[in-house]
Amino acid sequence: MKSISIGLVGLGTVGAGVAKLIKSRSSYVRAKYGVDLQLTSICDLRVDPKLVKSLGKVNVVKNYNEILNDPAIDVVVEVIGGVHPAYEIIHGALEHAKHVVTANKAVISSYGQELFRYARAKGRSVYFESAVLAGVPVIKTITEGIAGNRYNALFGIVNGTCNYILTQMSQNGLSFDQAVKMAQEKGYAESDPSLDVNGTDSAHKLAVLVALAMGKFLKVKEHIYTEGITEIGAEDFKYADELGLAIKLLAIAKKNDGKVEARVHPTLIAKTHPLASVQNVYNALLLEADALGDVLLVGQGAGQMAAASGVFSDLINLALANDLVDRTWIGDNPEEFEVLELRPMSEVEVEYYIRLMVIDRPGVLSKITGILGNEGISIASVTQKAVSKNMAVPLVMLTHMAKESSLRKAIEQIVKLKETKATPVVIRMERL
Amino acid sequence: MKSISIGLVGLGTVGAGVAKLIKSRSSYVRAKYGVDLQLTSICDLRVDPKLVKSLGKVNVVKNYNEILNDPAIDVVVEVIGGVHPAYEIIHGALEHAKHVVTANKAVISSYGQELFRYARAKGRSVYFESAVLAGVPVIKTITEGIAGNRYNALFGIVNGTCNYILTQMSQNGLSFDQAVKMAQEKGYAESDPSLDVNGTDSAHKLAVLVALAMGKFLKVKEHIYTEGITEIGAEDFKYADELGLAIKLLAIAKKNDGKVEARVHPTLIAKTHPLASVQNVYNALLLEADALGDVLLVGQGAGQMAAASGVFSDLINLALANDLVDRTWIGDNPEEFEVLELRPMSEVEVEYYIRLMVIDRPGVLSKITGILGNEGISIASVTQKAVSKNMAVPLVMLTHMAKESSLRKAIEQIVKLKETKATPVVIRMERL
Repeated sequence: MKSISIGLVGLGTVGAGVAKLIKSRSSYVRAKYGVDLQLTSICDLRVDPKLVKSLGKVNVVKNYNEILNDPAIDVVVEVIGGVHPAYEIIHGALEHAKHVVTANKAVISSYGQELFRYARAKGRSVYFESAVLAGVPVIKTITEGIAGNRYNALFGIVNGTCNYILTQMSQNGLSFDQAVKMAQEKGYAESDPSLDVNGTDSAHKLAVLVALAMGKFLKVKEHIYTEGITEIGAEDFKYADELGLAIKLLAIAKKNDGKVEARVHPTLIAKTHPLASVQNVYNALLLEADALGDVLLVGQGAGQMAAASGVFSDLINLALANDLVDRTWIGDNPEEFEVLELRPMSEVEVEYYIRLMVIDRPGVLSKITGILGNEGISIASVTQKAVSKNMAVPLVMLTHMAKESSLRKAIEQIVKLKETKATPVVIRMERL
Repeated sequence: MKSISIGLVGLGTVGAGVAKLIKSRSSYVRAKYGVDLQLTSICDLRVDPKLVKSLGKVNVVKNYNEILNDPAIDVVVEVIGGVHPAYEIIHGALEHAKHVVTANKAVISSYGQELFRYARAKGRSVYFESAVLAGVPVIKTITEGIAGNRYNALFGIVNGTCNYILTQMSQNGLSFDQAVKMAQEKGYAESDPSLDVNGTDSAHKLAVLVALAMGKFLKVKEHIYTEGITEIGAEDFKYADELGLAIKLLAIAKKNDGKVEARVHPTLIAKTHPLASVQNVYNALLLEADALGDVLLVGQGAGQMAAASGVFSDLINLALANDLVDRTWIGDNPEEFEVLELRPMSEVEVEYYIRLMVIDRPGVLSKITGILGNEGISIASVTQKAVSKNMAVPLVMLTHMAKESSLRKAIEQIVKLKETKATPVVIRMERL
């Protein structure tokens, strides 16, 4: 029976879940897969002695170099999160000719290309199923499950915190602040939730997905337009609902005319689409594959066992791989993928929802539609809620397809009108 | 570069799709995967000469034995469908030490266990991603994507014809016959749609899924309770909608207390669940994995390119497999899985929706609820639409959890009441 020896770096929530799975399922894994997963060493500064005791014979070390330097260890599992020293641990493991399993989207989105080249040079693999949608096998699906297809577009709900907040705002009419508080109470949001709610976490995951599905390595800050969910108001859910639409924070990539666009922002989608039914902390990924068509995967994108499950699955798949068939990053050559340019956000075209607060006086609508028209933006529908004369009232418009640069120019002018009160809310729409 | 030589048996809709993919994507597959897929021979009694010409250098034969006996062929693709001679082709291919790719759920559900044992004995593999949900990678997900998990339950919308018919009845108020006619006009139903609408096709696919996910080989006719969609009336969609429920034909398997239950029948599910949003010819599979949690896959479960994509993906994955790691059926030994008994349908417990037509006269409701109570079935809700006295009116009830055998006894007695008009409609409910 094949046996692999594992060094686990990080015994936090996910690490503890991985350790428990390795321990509790060892006989099942031996019987079903014919491999023996041995958890040999654990590195963490503070460990729960009860947990360690329950794991049986295992070395506990405080310096990860002890794991990297241990010739008996075959695979290093990195579950500490963050970029540093996670990068150094992964790089060091490869340097010592060990395979790596990680759940770290920050490292993979920033250093993936370099680490995978290095892994190939060293004849080793890096598995990272849990980096996106936790253990829901989106990485495996993109790289192996739908082999031989090209991906024209992808749409992901990849951050459970944001999806929970938006679901609570939508279903229970909570304000953003109330929903954040509730998410924190339930353990779905950090005490500082900014990396989630400002879209950064989603952008990291989008970078990983675009690299895998479209072969384009993007730098998160430079190349991915990222907008969070902090500007959406309770009333936007009401108007969206009336229009048959739901609001989701989507990570979007589309490929056309040799260009790829990648963006993270709140998005209006049809309420009847299965993606709109993905609620609370569930995550989802919709792939548009050119032969197969649309494929949607839905599941828990966070949580101890959901993330640990993906790492555990990676360990089994790694143990069963007979030699280096690094499916994820095979063919790091120019011909493998079409060479795609980046489409700048200003050139992206979508339909827009625009909510303004305007003083309800004669001629206002004409001024606003005039500005939009001058920028080449035509209106698909307008709803003006008459409250009373000379009061600020909401004006909700849907546009036809328009270029982002035109929309921004129009909004700049609209903001300057004396009838405009409050900052306009603009939400992009996608027809899935 | 690794090259594999392919013999394609069947140049019907799916076969033509496979041939086109192999031909049109050969350079892409060489660049991305480093393998050369060579379509060497095609077997079909009648072939479209224009199509064959477009495929370049390829032998066309009328007897599949010419392919089986050709030592130059590495893989046989069987896409003729049906049990015979598909079984003989697959068996013969393995006998001649060739790998097999098939999209045939009928053969795999009937002879899977035998064929896979034989394949192992011969050191060859059988791939069949397209047997369930076409190219949507449910087989790969169950066997590899969520490795190390056990599946407690699964729920599938696995027949596009039925889902199209139910969607049309639900959304457009069509009768069953109208919806079938529309499905036929669109090419979504055969001229004789009985194997689809009576649930047989779904039962075949369920047998494949249960074997993979739970390690239990079921005989479709003996072991899978199968009920089609022919008894559902337009009014059932109306009542379901009022109750916040949708009606879907589900293939269901559940595991508990060492037993497995497997059944195909129309099922009421919450409208808010993503499975309820799977419309028209789309298919879906919901897996309850014990570590990861719920995972849902949605995509096109039929159609030329959707099915061909799965076969094409299998060919690439087969070409990349370095030796026989037959992940699908690894460990054909008693310890691999729990040994599960079959739970007979009579012992299955669910909640029921019961629609009766009864003469609206005093004491009727008390008689009916009395019968149900005597069988230990308690009522969760009752809706009686009063039309006019002494006329037959619909009576719609939801029960709490009850045993199938009790429900049947109660229905037998209710049918005999003189107040009961028309055959009762019973639909099982699942909380997902």
